[in-house]
Amino acid sequence: MKRLKSLIDDIVNRISANLREPDMDVRAHVDGLIPQDSHSIYYAFYALTTEHPLSFHFTRSSLAGTYFLGKCEVELSVVYKSDIRGDELKRKGTVVKVNGTELQLFQDERISIRHSFLIKTLVHNNSHDTENVEIFRILNSLSMHYANIHGTSLEGCFIAPFATVDLSTCRNCIVGEFSYVQAGDLSGERIVPGRVWIKQRGVFELNYEHDHNVLDKYISLDANKHPKGVFMDFCESHKAEFDPVYSLTQPEIGLEVPDTSFVSHYSVLKGDCAVGENVLVAQRAFIEDSRLGDGSNAQENCYIINSNYEGMNVTAHGGKVVNCDLGRKTFIGFNSFLRGSEQARVKIGRNCVIMPHTIIEATEPLDIPNGSLVWGYIRTQADLKKNTIAMDEFSKRNSLSLGRLTFTGDGAAFVDGFAHRVDHILEENGAYYDGSPETAGHAQKTQEVSYNTVQAYIGGEFKGLCPTMIIRPLVP
Amino acid sequence: MKRLKSLIDDIVNRISANLREPDMDVRAHVDGLIPQDSHSIYYAFYALTTEHPLSFHFTRSSLAGTYFLGKCEVELSVVYKSDIRGDELKRKGTVVKVNGTELQLFQDERISIRHSFLIKTLVHNNSHDTENVEIFRILNSLSMHYANIHGTSLEGCFIAPFATVDLSTCRNCIVGEFSYVQAGDLSGERIVPGRVWIKQRGVFELNYEHDHNVLDKYISLDANKHPKGVFMDFCESHKAEFDPVYSLTQPEIGLEVPDTSFVSHYSVLKGDCAVGENVLVAQRAFIEDSRLGDGSNAQENCYIINSNYEGMNVTAHGGKVVNCDLGRKTFIGFNSFLRGSEQARVKIGRNCVIMPHTIIEATEPLDIPNGSLVWGYIRTQADLKKNTIAMDEFSKRNSLSLGRLTFTGDGAAFVDGFAHRVDHILEENGAYYDGSPETAGHAQKTQEVSYNTVQAYIGGEFKGLCPTMIIRPLVP
Repeated sequence: MKRLKSLIDDIVNRISANLREPDMDVRAHVDGLIPQDSHSIYYAFYALTTEHPLSFHFTRSSLAGTYFLGKCEVELSVVYKSDIRGDELKRKGTVVKVNGTELQLFQDERISIRHSFLIKTLVHNNSHDTENVEIFRILNSLSMHYANIHGTSLEGCFIAPFATVDLSTCRNCIVGEFSYVQAGDLSGERIVPGRVWIKQRGVFELNYEHDHNVLDKYISLDANKHPKGVFMDFCESHKAEFDPVYSLTQPEIGLEVPDTSFVSHYSVLKGDCAVGENVLVAQRAFIEDSRLGDGSNAQENCYIINSNYEGMNVTAHGGKVVNCDLGRKTFIGFNSFLRGSEQARVKIGRNCVIMPHTIIEATEPLDIPNGSLVWGYIRTQADLKKNTIAMDEFSKRNSLSLGRLTFTGDGAAFVDGFAHRVDHILEENGAYYDGSPETAGHAQKTQEVSYNTVQAYIGGEFKGLCPTMIIRPLVP
Repeated sequence: MKRLKSLIDDIVNRISANLREPDMDVRAHVDGLIPQDSHSIYYAFYALTTEHPLSFHFTRSSLAGTYFLGKCEVELSVVYKSDIRGDELKRKGTVVKVNGTELQLFQDERISIRHSFLIKTLVHNNSHDTENVEIFRILNSLSMHYANIHGTSLEGCFIAPFATVDLSTCRNCIVGEFSYVQAGDLSGERIVPGRVWIKQRGVFELNYEHDHNVLDKYISLDANKHPKGVFMDFCESHKAEFDPVYSLTQPEIGLEVPDTSFVSHYSVLKGDCAVGENVLVAQRAFIEDSRLGDGSNAQENCYIINSNYEGMNVTAHGGKVVNCDLGRKTFIGFNSFLRGSEQARVKIGRNCVIMPHTIIEATEPLDIPNGSLVWGYIRTQADLKKNTIAMDEFSKRNSLSLGRLTFTGDGAAFVDGFAHRVDHILEENGAYYDGSPETAGHAQKTQEVSYNTVQAYIGGEFKGLCPTMIIRPLVP
């Protein structure tokens, strides 16, 4: 165990050193966070498929419970029950067009994690630099429960629980609980809890900030700097339902799944569920008594309960959808928490965008019209007035101040950007699959997957650490 | 799948080329032996412990169902449901004494398998050259069901089902079904089925040959060159009982096991069993309604059913013991088949040696006196006359011809050699453990073990093959 302890000490020191400008010591956040034995009890696992790049290099790290896909290196890090997905890494030889000029990528992209401590974090690469080969580096950083690090590099950052860093390269930043940031390259920023910040330099900027009194109930840090609140309770209450899945070497899916769809063996489908064509259900997704229409997807750490998806619905990483009815092509953003009840269902029309980090906790039936953009904190039909806008309307605006939201810039660019991104996500996930290889996405490409497991030493000096592993394709 | 097919073709051609002197084409033996899907369905697994050397290098191979421990490389091979145990490999820096001179080993030993096809085979290194660093090479060889390759290197060999090559380096040899050979360095030998051949050059030579009419019933090759007979039926009849064990990521042992003993999670203990102190039960051992006294061990592929072990009993790889009572320190040799019944129990006294490849199928109660050496084929008390001798008596002989057994040479050297080996096996397995590190053996050193799994690609061109894997200790 002593090697793991000194590794954690070393990581904490490095992160704190990087955060000396905003003056933050992350030691308290890490102390006592993971029970000592858990580092050796839970196995990590990585996917082998016929369709994804493959390359892993793990060294001097604790990897307990983490899932890996694609090309990843982890060195001198603790990556605990996280998902490191490199399935959208660009590959050597790919030809990209930049202003009409064709460029060929000279090497494969990869994810590289060093001197970092990630817990229950989702890392999903997504190139925002089409013409460059990127190394998605996570260096000297701490990321906490259900944070999303999406398509981005971090250096010297602290990402608080349920925060999302999306397409933003961050250096020496602190991203507060349940903050969502998609604002380009950031350095030395301190983003307050519950802020939603979307900025495209010179084009638009959107800001929303959750009421801290409300937010505290959902997610905050306790006296020990560990997460507490409704979000944690919600996730914890379903934790045990994954136990059977992780205890079997080849878990079974108790449901008829069309050939064009993929349901991960490491997801939970419970009760009366139905899965349409071209559907993707990722590992660590939880579905209960719900129907996922054609082309829908349920990403990591999402929960879909007593809900209906008409089709082409995206549930981004960490989205929670309870007692909802979603119209076709409605999108649920990262870590959104949508909870209706039997008496107060949430009906969302077609082509809506539920912004990342939206909280809807319905106290009466809610009905959101087609084509709405939705954000903030909503309990009643009345709340909707200050937390939604028709996207057609928004497209015409170059500024907006509504409730706690402010927007300046090109509304059409914002709306088009979102629509484009939703389409891109659907494409990548295989929602548009028509049998031709060009239209295949994750749902089809992950069909032929097998999993290898990695467990740490369970005793002695190295307890909790994994051996050094290098995994390469059969033919390079 | 096409890569696996061409790999198997290549292996078969190489083996047959090596065996062109004895003129043998092994293609028929391999064709149709393993159902195609089985290469990708079953996972291989390797052990991490705090006490054993660790180093694996797997490349361009099918490893389905195989267990690895220690330092092993596998290249361009099919190793199916086999056990590759490198836990007795000598390590760099070890000082060995040769005629009073101290030599330090300059590198770690390792097992190296290349261009070979092993099925349900046990490979257990055991240095027979104390002063040299050995590479245990298995090259261009085919080894079939329940063969034991023990402490030895092979090149261009065919090892038939239930055959054992023990401490004998073989080149271009054919070892027939249920043959046991421990005869030093061999080249171009063709060993008939059912022969037991133990030779120490210039010291002694023992020969026994099973009656082929009897042997055929127990093990032979069918028209397709695949194994059939009582031995196969016996093993197959227990196969399904291992399914629950392999379907769980962390199988449980449903039995109280003393801290000084180790029961592999990949063994089966069924019914009313008891395990004493300093006991080792290896993976793929099957124990039912039996009692293993202090210091006993049950090695890979052994079956112990309705039997009692008084203590310090060794069941070598593949030993089968049904309805037997064993006195203290009685040894059951490789692949021996001892089957009594409720009405005809087999009672074996203390300090007996059941020679490797002995068949006892009792049709009446049998009582074997303390200190007996036992071999051959025994059904009745009368058969014992021609198939046992008191070891004290044997020690005084320099020749013996009894039934189908002949012996010439130094009887005392033979008996002492066996006694010494049994003691060595007990030591290595930790039977003499008294709490001090020097007396610890496999039973104690394997306590803190975790397992990693390796599954092949399950689709596409590489179906059935594993990715290239390099596993190294955390700190070299």
